[in-house]
Amino acid sequence: MKKFVNDPANFVPEMLEGVALANPDMLGYIPKFNIIHRSDRPVNNKVSVIQGSGSGHEPAHIMAVGPGMLDAAVPGNVFAAPPMDYCLECIRAMKSDAGVLVLINNYQGDRMNWDMACEMAEAEGINVKSFVIDDDVAVQDSSYTTGRRGVAGNFFVIKACGAAAERGASLDELLTLCDKVNSQVRSMGVALTSCTPPAKGSPIFDLGNDEMEVGVGIHGEPGRRRDKLKPSDAIMDEIFDAVAGDIPFKSGDKVALMINGLGGTPPSELYVLYRRAAQRCKDAGISVVRNYVGNYCTSLEMAGASLTMLRLDDQLEDLLAAPAEIATRVF
Amino acid sequence: MKKFVNDPANFVPEMLEGVALANPDMLGYIPKFNIIHRSDRPVNNKVSVIQGSGSGHEPAHIMAVGPGMLDAAVPGNVFAAPPMDYCLECIRAMKSDAGVLVLINNYQGDRMNWDMACEMAEAEGINVKSFVIDDDVAVQDSSYTTGRRGVAGNFFVIKACGAAAERGASLDELLTLCDKVNSQVRSMGVALTSCTPPAKGSPIFDLGNDEMEVGVGIHGEPGRRRDKLKPSDAIMDEIFDAVAGDIPFKSGDKVALMINGLGGTPPSELYVLYRRAAQRCKDAGISVVRNYVGNYCTSLEMAGASLTMLRLDDQLEDLLAAPAEIATRVF
Repeated sequence: MKKFVNDPANFVPEMLEGVALANPDMLGYIPKFNIIHRSDRPVNNKVSVIQGSGSGHEPAHIMAVGPGMLDAAVPGNVFAAPPMDYCLECIRAMKSDAGVLVLINNYQGDRMNWDMACEMAEAEGINVKSFVIDDDVAVQDSSYTTGRRGVAGNFFVIKACGAAAERGASLDELLTLCDKVNSQVRSMGVALTSCTPPAKGSPIFDLGNDEMEVGVGIHGEPGRRRDKLKPSDAIMDEIFDAVAGDIPFKSGDKVALMINGLGGTPPSELYVLYRRAAQRCKDAGISVVRNYVGNYCTSLEMAGASLTMLRLDDQLEDLLAAPAEIATRVF
Repeated sequence: MKKFVNDPANFVPEMLEGVALANPDMLGYIPKFNIIHRSDRPVNNKVSVIQGSGSGHEPAHIMAVGPGMLDAAVPGNVFAAPPMDYCLECIRAMKSDAGVLVLINNYQGDRMNWDMACEMAEAEGINVKSFVIDDDVAVQDSSYTTGRRGVAGNFFVIKACGAAAERGASLDELLTLCDKVNSQVRSMGVALTSCTPPAKGSPIFDLGNDEMEVGVGIHGEPGRRRDKLKPSDAIMDEIFDAVAGDIPFKSGDKVALMINGLGGTPPSELYVLYRRAAQRCKDAGISVVRNYVGNYCTSLEMAGASLTMLRLDDQLEDLLAAPAEIATRVF
């Protein structure tokens, strides 16, 4: 295992401590429950938007906390759902008169723990609702899900809800918005290598030197098939067809286009992929009005990438362009 | 070779095309000479700040082009200096009444080609000056350099000069500023894996399963020594001592602290490294007033990271906080 890690048991707490130390003014940190939150939250009259899932997908979700994005994130261990009591403490810490919205990616562990936490919070009189994201077109059911998985499309649900909540949207309005984004966003990814959780110390699956996993999940779950590695354009063509064909996207659509790196793929390759995706959109008469190229939802150091497309209307275009601030400094 | 690549000979042009397609309003692209430039440049009465070096270090330098940063970048092939005529064409394309400033990282190939290009541009009557950056404390001379190498510290020279040029600084004032930043910035990196240039198809060096290269260069050049992999904190302690001990940084100093990923290391590990670096600064009485954690200067998909520290005064602190815009969308 070649990683920057001390005791693997402390990997997540040390990462969280690093994030908190790097953002002393903007973020608060509750070590006992792995909670990273906006230092100025909760605020009454604003819905708190929160999320918690396994670690190992950074910058999702702890580095998506900030004004106009998430109000708090509560990660579990690497690739493990946060314990129910962590979820409940996060809801309690972020409770607001306007309510709490929990964004859940569709994995059984996450859903189970959040469902229990929401029930207990409601029993305490907290106004909390949840929404499940399932944007991955690769497979209908998978190792850890009934139904489709939630992957990088989650970013757009966070951004839209974060912006709308900042403008005063109610909890019901946010649930309607979640449903709109989730119904219009589709993703699919490809892995070129496996990855190694620090506490496991060995790769979570094996992939031959000339192989790729088409439709991989963000925890290494099997996708549609294993295939021989192909040229970049051929790979993009396959995932573009799968993603664009799913709603389907059609000529005249305006979209946000994301090429998401899975952790170990450098920016140069992501832009080679973007080039082909942009060409395919142009050929299909689809207008890319906003684009994202980088690491948004990773699988530790996995080499690979995913494509996410979101169909936009005026409301979504406006919300994506809203100001936001997160725990990542670019310049 | 497990990469998103088509014909390796087209890797750099396809990446550049991707960057241009992703930024149709902000960036211009001159395919014949690999030039990416601000679409609103050159502007008279403003010095043009440009850079060109090997590809494979993205986001440096093509994704550092934008208002308040570089006015243009002209990359060569992967890990190869841009040809002299590319450099010359870039100077010509960006010439301004206020002059052109070329920022060069200290590698023999880059220096030779830029020196020739600057001479030829001067012979054409263009007012052009260059500055050489050499922030890497790992070794005094190396495979491709006489003197120290230029690595991630380059980011701070770009940011400071980009901000000052935007405010109307003269070419002479920018040269003085370059000298100030370069004299106050120090870096050192560690590689956990090698990396594979697409055209080569095999790793540029071999590293055992339990080994790391301490003080590695951004093209895989040997560092101070090869060692057994250690816990993350022990690795950071060694590079922190080397970097902080070099000027040396001292109690009471204000610094910008950067943990730079070399391409294949995920954000989680970079924050584990940041945590220790921040603790070490605190213990040493050094105040971190600005921090950067992410990929700024990479070596393709190499797993590894570097530490950069810049000592700040009021002028530098102000310039680092100036607005800027580059070809990377975070949210």
